[in-house]
Amino acid sequence: MNKHATDLRIDAGRFRATFEELAAIGATPKGGVDRPAFSKAHLEARRWLLETAKQAGLETSVDGAGNHSVLLRCGPPGAPILLLGSHLDSVPNAGRYDGALGVIAALEVLQTVRQHGLSLASHLEAIDFTDEEGHYTNFVGSLGLTGQLKAEHIQSPRGGRRRFHQALNRARLSEESLFVAGRSPASIAGYLELHIEQGRRLVEQKVPIGIVTSIVGIRSFMVHFLGRADHAGTTPLNLRRDAAQGASAFILAVRETVLREFPDCVGTVGNVTFEPGVFNVVAETASVSLEFRADGVSKLDAMETRLGQAAADAARRFELDLEIEDLDSSPPARMDENAQASIAQACERLDLEFMLMPSGAGHDAQCLATVCPTGMIFVPSVGGHSHSPREHTEWPDCVNGANVLLQAALSLARL
Amino acid sequence: MNKHATDLRIDAGRFRATFEELAAIGATPKGGVDRPAFSKAHLEARRWLLETAKQAGLETSVDGAGNHSVLLRCGPPGAPILLLGSHLDSVPNAGRYDGALGVIAALEVLQTVRQHGLSLASHLEAIDFTDEEGHYTNFVGSLGLTGQLKAEHIQSPRGGRRRFHQALNRARLSEESLFVAGRSPASIAGYLELHIEQGRRLVEQKVPIGIVTSIVGIRSFMVHFLGRADHAGTTPLNLRRDAAQGASAFILAVRETVLREFPDCVGTVGNVTFEPGVFNVVAETASVSLEFRADGVSKLDAMETRLGQAAADAARRFELDLEIEDLDSSPPARMDENAQASIAQACERLDLEFMLMPSGAGHDAQCLATVCPTGMIFVPSVGGHSHSPREHTEWPDCVNGANVLLQAALSLARL
Repeated sequence: MNKHATDLRIDAGRFRATFEELAAIGATPKGGVDRPAFSKAHLEARRWLLETAKQAGLETSVDGAGNHSVLLRCGPPGAPILLLGSHLDSVPNAGRYDGALGVIAALEVLQTVRQHGLSLASHLEAIDFTDEEGHYTNFVGSLGLTGQLKAEHIQSPRGGRRRFHQALNRARLSEESLFVAGRSPASIAGYLELHIEQGRRLVEQKVPIGIVTSIVGIRSFMVHFLGRADHAGTTPLNLRRDAAQGASAFILAVRETVLREFPDCVGTVGNVTFEPGVFNVVAETASVSLEFRADGVSKLDAMETRLGQAAADAARRFELDLEIEDLDSSPPARMDENAQASIAQACERLDLEFMLMPSGAGHDAQCLATVCPTGMIFVPSVGGHSHSPREHTEWPDCVNGANVLLQAALSLARL
Repeated sequence: MNKHATDLRIDAGRFRATFEELAAIGATPKGGVDRPAFSKAHLEARRWLLETAKQAGLETSVDGAGNHSVLLRCGPPGAPILLLGSHLDSVPNAGRYDGALGVIAALEVLQTVRQHGLSLASHLEAIDFTDEEGHYTNFVGSLGLTGQLKAEHIQSPRGGRRRFHQALNRARLSEESLFVAGRSPASIAGYLELHIEQGRRLVEQKVPIGIVTSIVGIRSFMVHFLGRADHAGTTPLNLRRDAAQGASAFILAVRETVLREFPDCVGTVGNVTFEPGVFNVVAETASVSLEFRADGVSKLDAMETRLGQAAADAARRFELDLEIEDLDSSPPARMDENAQASIAQACERLDLEFMLMPSGAGHDAQCLATVCPTGMIFVPSVGGHSHSPREHTEWPDCVNGANVLLQAALSLARL
């Protein structure tokens, strides 16, 4: 890279102004945003993105999966495109950073490169993927663009098919259009995503940049303990088959097993439901929501085996029957070595400390990683808060992240 | 008692026919009944009771609390009344025996005594108390009759005040009328109630009659564990304040503590609710429904202390805050020694084995026990099932119970 390019920095003032303009769309009283996919605020944010890009002299387009793109033709004719992006949709009652930061940083990178008239080996595209948060269907935009969307992905959207179709209509999309968004892998040079960490590791270690090594795979199950409903007053404890006891032993065992045997992984029980679920009846059934995450398939397999054994042990201890319902899984996604190296060089160039870390949360990058070299940059989340109005990243960290994105993109677009 | 009276037996054929007639009112396809208080079927059952009694030549009356009574004036003028009874209301989708058996047996006792023209020291009254099961307000009839009903009892009826008022209207009652049902204790000679055990002790020990020594007191609490909602993917286990863990440790500790330190008592967690209660968020709060029962106040106090300590231990272990919400309590009720002795003599006379036992469930008898000598007779529940269409008592056991009720009533009514 020539001297000029390595010295290039984003325009921090413009970046902030653009970020704040976006944060006003769907703003909530507590300082966050509420922009679930295809909501009025979300569609408004997407229109605003295209309008802002056009005013900056950039090309725009929308594909069949609703992905909103801003294109800078800075490569030779027929060059592949380096994608930079994230998503403008949010969970309900969210913070301002999750997704939004990555899209606005990508737009800022394009504006910076355009302003300095750089010629690269690839074109640059800032992209806002559709429904990353899964208000209807997780990752429908990035699955569509990478040609991985299958009929079963959209068979049971959250909230039901009717509501999903109404949402697609509002965005002038259809089930059919989602499937025509696929691009040829040869047309994509790679994908870089800047995102907030959504955890506490960077903040606690006081490191400004995280380089994601992999996005963890997730498996989720409903674990049902089946006992017998009995009168809480007339049934001595030693004659009960109390599903509450089995579920509780299992919930403790999930934590203990993961801490002891899989210390770099996580396992969570976020919900449990007792039936009949009243004060004065012994629980007949207890259904436990289990999910666990690891950065490798063999580790996921081992966790599934060990947690299954823990469930069986808990059921046996309290004379319960056990049914384990397999709900969902997503495989781990490795980030590209070269993309990681480019991000690390960018950090060194900018004199920013970094650490390598897996991403415990899912991101569009996991879909892109299967078709192109993909890298992710994390910036610190204050207090680790996310999916909440308390979500916050110090502004200098956002600027650092955007400059790392710029420098890493320049490296990759020149390869 | 003269030879004639001790040889007296109920008419088993008439008893069964009457029982079956009642069981047809509100009958469910699975062989149970559905007669929640003030439902159409419940009101029909009560009308049927008065009609059946009138046809048998007995007096009937209804008081301001809706209690339905059948009176046999077999004592001298101004004599006190020995009450025999239970309730015709049921939980939704109930069995045929809970409550109904005691009312029909009481009616049969009055018919038997009338038929044989016995003169006793007390009058006899078969009584059907209102809403024993608490479809709106537990024990509203027996609280009303014993003058213990307070405004707070009916302040928050289940299902709300509007629905309660509509129900009272249907039965031609009002909130005001409930308070005018109180009787002077001097007018009541005592109270005897025949009921199914609703547990497995008689069946498992193959004993046909249980003599209740006391009805356990109940205390109930909502125990809230307060942690922090965190992203299930990005928050390492050792940095979490997971309310699910504290709740689970506590649920196990309830069982262990009661088994170890209060082996003749019961403690139950019948429900728990996690918030936000989703797969991929660490539970911020877990609210545990706790109730425990014991036959003495000092034992209840000790349980409250020890289970409170167990909750504090579980909260401390997982760095959670703890809030314990006191919901409800009913004191233990001792059955009268003399009533117990009369029931025991009746069993001996009938050559029936019996065992002394506390009642783990609540009954109208606990309200009566505070104003008059009160006794309860249990008959075996097959499999311990109750509050379910599977509720069953072998018919010979029902007949035995009714004969014990008759003989015990004759003893008490002659004192």
